[in-house]
Amino acid sequence: MLTVAVVMGSTSDWPTMKQATALLSQLGISFEKHVISAHRMPDTLGAFAKSARGAGIDVIIAGAGGAAHLPGMLAANTTLPVIGVPIKTRTLNGVDSLLSIVQMPAGVPVATMAIGEAGAKNAALTAAAILSVRDQSVAKRLTAFRQAQTLAAQESEARLDD
Amino acid sequence: MLTVAVVMGSTSDWPTMKQATALLSQLGISFEKHVISAHRMPDTLGAFAKSARGAGIDVIIAGAGGAAHLPGMLAANTTLPVIGVPIKTRTLNGVDSLLSIVQMPAGVPVATMAIGEAGAKNAALTAAAILSVRDQSVAKRLTAFRQAQTLAAQESEARLDD
Amino acid sequence: MLTVAVVMGSTSDWPTMKQATALLSQLGISFEKHVISAHRMPDTLGAFAKSARGAGIDVIIAGAGGAAHLPGMLAANTTLPVIGVPIKTRTLNGVDSLLSIVQMPAGVPVATMAIGEAGAKNAALTAAAILSVRDQSVAKRLTAFRQAQTLAAQESEARLDD
Amino acid sequence: MLTVAVVMGSTSDWPTMKQATALLSQLGISFEKHVISAHRMPDTLGAFAKSARGAGIDVIIAGAGGAAHLPGMLAANTTLPVIGVPIKTRTLNGVDSLLSIVQMPAGVPVATMAIGEAGAKNAALTAAAILSVRDQSVAKRLTAFRQAQTLAAQESEARLDD
Amino acid sequence: MLTVAVVMGSTSDWPTMKQATALLSQLGISFEKHVISAHRMPDTLGAFAKSARGAGIDVIIAGAGGAAHLPGMLAANTTLPVIGVPIKTRTLNGVDSLLSIVQMPAGVPVATMAIGEAGAKNAALTAAAILSVRDQSVAKRLTAFRQAQTLAAQESEARLDD
Amino acid sequence: MLTVAVVMGSTSDWPTMKQATALLSQLGISFEKHVISAHRMPDTLGAFAKSARGAGIDVIIAGAGGAAHLPGMLAANTTLPVIGVPIKTRTLNGVDSLLSIVQMPAGVPVATMAIGEAGAKNAALTAAAILSVRDQSVAKRLTAFRQAQTLAAQESEARLDD
Amino acid sequence: MLTVAVVMGSTSDWPTMKQATALLSQLGISFEKHVISAHRMPDTLGAFAKSARGAGIDVIIAGAGGAAHLPGMLAANTTLPVIGVPIKTRTLNGVDSLLSIVQMPAGVPVATMAIGEAGAKNAALTAAAILSVRDQSVAKRLTAFRQAQTLAAQESEARLDD
Amino acid sequence: MLTVAVVMGSTSDWPTMKQATALLSQLGISFEKHVISAHRMPDTLGAFAKSARGAGIDVIIAGAGGAAHLPGMLAANTTLPVIGVPIKTRTLNGVDSLLSIVQMPAGVPVATMAIGEAGAKNAALTAAAILSVRDQSVAKRLTAFRQAQTLAAQESEARLDD
Repeated sequence: MLTVAVVMGSTSDWPTMKQATALLSQLGISFEKHVISAHRMPDTLGAFAKSARGAGIDVIIAGAGGAAHLPGMLAANTTLPVIGVPIKTRTLNGVDSLLSIVQMPAGVPVATMAIGEAGAKNAALTAAAILSVRDQSVAKRLTAFRQAQTLAAQESEARLDD
Repeated sequence: MLTVAVVMGSTSDWPTMKQATALLSQLGISFEKHVISAHRMPDTLGAFAKSARGAGIDVIIAGAGGAAHLPGMLAANTTLPVIGVPIKTRTLNGVDSLLSIVQMPAGVPVATMAIGEAGAKNAALTAAAILSVRDQSVAKRLTAFRQAQTLAAQESEARLDD
Repeated sequence: MLTVAVVMGSTSDWPTMKQATALLSQLGISFEKHVISAHRMPDTLGAFAKSARGAGIDVIIAGAGGAAHLPGMLAANTTLPVIGVPIKTRTLNGVDSLLSIVQMPAGVPVATMAIGEAGAKNAALTAAAILSVRDQSVAKRLTAFRQAQTLAAQESEARLDD
Repeated sequence: MLTVAVVMGSTSDWPTMKQATALLSQLGISFEKHVISAHRMPDTLGAFAKSARGAGIDVIIAGAGGAAHLPGMLAANTTLPVIGVPIKTRTLNGVDSLLSIVQMPAGVPVATMAIGEAGAKNAALTAAAILSVRDQSVAKRLTAFRQAQTLAAQESEARLDD
Repeated sequence: MLTVAVVMGSTSDWPTMKQATALLSQLGISFEKHVISAHRMPDTLGAFAKSARGAGIDVIIAGAGGAAHLPGMLAANTTLPVIGVPIKTRTLNGVDSLLSIVQMPAGVPVATMAIGEAGAKNAALTAAAILSVRDQSVAKRLTAFRQAQTLAAQESEARLDD
Repeated sequence: MLTVAVVMGSTSDWPTMKQATALLSQLGISFEKHVISAHRMPDTLGAFAKSARGAGIDVIIAGAGGAAHLPGMLAANTTLPVIGVPIKTRTLNGVDSLLSIVQMPAGVPVATMAIGEAGAKNAALTAAAILSVRDQSVAKRLTAFRQAQTLAAQESEARLDD
Repeated sequence: MLTVAVVMGSTSDWPTMKQATALLSQLGISFEKHVISAHRMPDTLGAFAKSARGAGIDVIIAGAGGAAHLPGMLAANTTLPVIGVPIKTRTLNGVDSLLSIVQMPAGVPVATMAIGEAGAKNAALTAAAILSVRDQSVAKRLTAFRQAQTLAAQESEARLDD
Repeated sequence: MLTVAVVMGSTSDWPTMKQATALLSQLGISFEKHVISAHRMPDTLGAFAKSARGAGIDVIIAGAGGAAHLPGMLAANTTLPVIGVPIKTRTLNGVDSLLSIVQMPAGVPVATMAIGEAGAKNAALTAAAILSVRDQSVAKRLTAFRQAQTLAAQESEARLDD
């Protein structure tokens, strides 16, 4: 029972995007992962997005860098929630990716995360939050994750040296 | 049966945020609306977010401008999906709002929309997409909305003058 | 004998893009014009771009604003030269449009112009320059246009008041 | 007799923020230090800020990065002076931190310092300047610090090689 | 018994800076106001700052725009707390003012506020917070101001139209 | 039968620009390469551009960094298509190069590519696309290149590790 | 005895640049003024700059907007001091003009002023300062101008209303 | 017979600023060099600038980083030409330095160079250009320098490898 699809524009995005898949695994959420380049594989992109809901996918996470068209074009081809992760770029540090993803016109949204690894992790948590609307067990695991995270933050103070 | 809460930091955000409520109405999605200033009403913020899931809210939409802390602090107090709308500001055009909302640290995500009215409309559509994971009827209305939107775009070409 | 296609994402881009069509007319270059929204009409976009070369189009000019995916997605579906015009936006003045168009990944280029009307005019001149590679008469008209332009600039000095 | 609280959002901020505590020590100003994550420990944040004045704290220094909500949310919960230090970030170099801290709305200020270590040092000096309003001995030590600093700058010229 | 000096680089800054003086008046805090241009009156600047503490001034608020050197040069000549207000500029919207004020080097701090009127108001509140360290009555008035502000925010929700 | 001229402002641009020449070679397109500094060799620049069309050059690719005047000044002296490549700079990462190249006034266009190596590669592909308007064999080689590129992208998914 | 040449890229720059000529007149400095478009009149540009020193010009002031190549290309063709004035632009407020002018490579400098009218005025004052190195009478007039300016600033304080 | 003063805000600016002194030496122009921190040595700054013309200095070159007040405050205290060099900073790459130096208000100009080493070299060349207005021998050496530079650029093409 697959629920989340993690898509990226290039294998070079994988070091960032595997932060998302690792966290999905930790939260017990099934996922599939794909390389779909918006500019090199536009037909695959359209076919994938059009068939996603029917294939049992509930949420799409898409990471892309530069003129990052992947998340927006997936969103153009589905009514599923699409979460965008702006990949940090060498020249513009991901500002280009961020603006290309977040500044979608009215009518076709992409739920945009922070640039880079923090954004990839948060994409997984956002997917979990979305699934928690339907599935109480995900809500419970998400709550447990957040509690553990709070506890770790509280305990970290002891590590400040003098 | 309330499902979406639309929250804003100030009544001055209302001209933007009512684009979200209007679209929720159009999609047949119930909502409540609130002014909760992160900096002037921090206790209300915490109490609201902590009780939201229990109160039957499924998605929170939050608009804020400048050092826009409202969406992130709501997210800090709930595991519900929080959608952030960066309000356009007079000095920095909403770049400050955008970065304050989207650059959340790993662990507590905000699903960020475009700056301004387009973002507010897309927040409603994202909420609908999230609810569509649970509710087929929302998925159908969302599909109908998107089809009508596509039709309007197709027909608009005829309006280009010579 | 159509040669240039002028495409825009929305009728709201027309006041900018008609600077391109006016200049194409002035240069005696045939064109057709279309509204094709990348996010609302993705299938039309793909079909149009795939068939463009076969339909006798030599150059595509595409204007779009915000998360401006239209030029890049046209380029993803054709090997024709695609010229991108970043439309000025209300919140970010077209910086978002510019970065979304110009920062294309290696492999699929968009020839990007300046933001706004200057960019639209220059798109027409770039199309003419491209066509001049094949057609000497276009080269001559382009040279004449440039000479007239130079003359006008030279004569403008007399208009500086004291 | 504690007077200054140095708070940071994460232990990863400590290399920056210990520049503040080191300078407070040098100026003979007592301090306590805490890790309080705005997004992982929002209740601790509120409780800490609300009780700070009563607990004898006179000034709060808060360092945070990215969507840096810690200084502003502390300020929302106290009338003590809150000094914000924007931590340099990997993607945006701290521009996100700076805007998230400095662009506070009218009504709840954060006294914002430069990005990074210079800002952390200056937070300590600002705290000293604030305390000097009440305590002449702090004013004297601050004056001595500044005089030594001036002397060091004057003497540094001799180190320019030829 | 003067306590706060409000200084600006030009009379053109007065529409912004009088937001600060109005709020100081409302909080019952005495102030004096001056035009001291860093670039046109550098000697006045130095003399004023050097004599400020001896003249009974406790806090300096300084507003300036563009290459805004006034706050930093005042801080260079005194150990009093200096609060900087970046004035919005016509070309760069105050980004130049903000960076010129906030990016002070280690050793000489300026407590920087938001760009424009919000910053001017918050400068007054920061001055009050600083004075509250010494004077309980200011702390009380500040608390009352904040409570009224919170109440006004709470009541504003009723003004959202349907 | 030379067709493309690859020009750069300095030998320090060569590591970037040789991405363009390598790809031209791969596509079987003849080229010549030159160092012409706009600021150190303005007469050479003018003479080169004025004579380019007559010398059998069809397209000019120009790379430059910082206040990157080379592409625009070449365009000022020819009606050939000029493709600009913004070189990444040490201080501003190529934002200066990009704006200096792309923001050309109406009347004299430069077809601008992405910053850095991706832009250099895409300059070669844009030149090929331009030449394909005249030469079917280039169109075929370009199509083959793009198909191979698509195939490589499709196959890359298998390299995502678990 | 002409000494300063004021050059601009277009008559649309004249409202800004006449601030420079007005101030030169006020300081009793002779000047000539020209429209020389770098992109429409490159030959005129080269000829003018090459002959300027021989023609008795001592300083060149050049205003330009967007991809502002005029000041840098003048500097490339003369060893006279060239002062650049970035014209405010409609899309990017003159940030493009500023970077295109100031980021000149080592070897060919342009002395860059602030964006817009303040920059135009300061170009005149910089020209006067340069001429004052040779001519004591200019130094005296410049000193008188600055003293009057200081006096006006000092007296302006009286205009702050209560 | 000293003519140029090279001033910097800190010894940490020396690696950049010695590019200026090296080039002055190469051009046979006398200079003195100083560390004068605007914020740590404001009295020295004022005294130095006020006495500079009388002491036989013709041009001041000033390098500073961050909230770079040194060039502007020198200019506030002299009518000599002041050339500003924005030092590259660790957090903002010198954008802060650039805006703090270049955005001077009308009335007190700083002739601003590029960020970093290129700017330091160009400061020396600008000083030489200024001195060439008075001294023909400097003009000759400057011309020779520029010719050698052009020759080196011309010859560099041979170093492009295949």
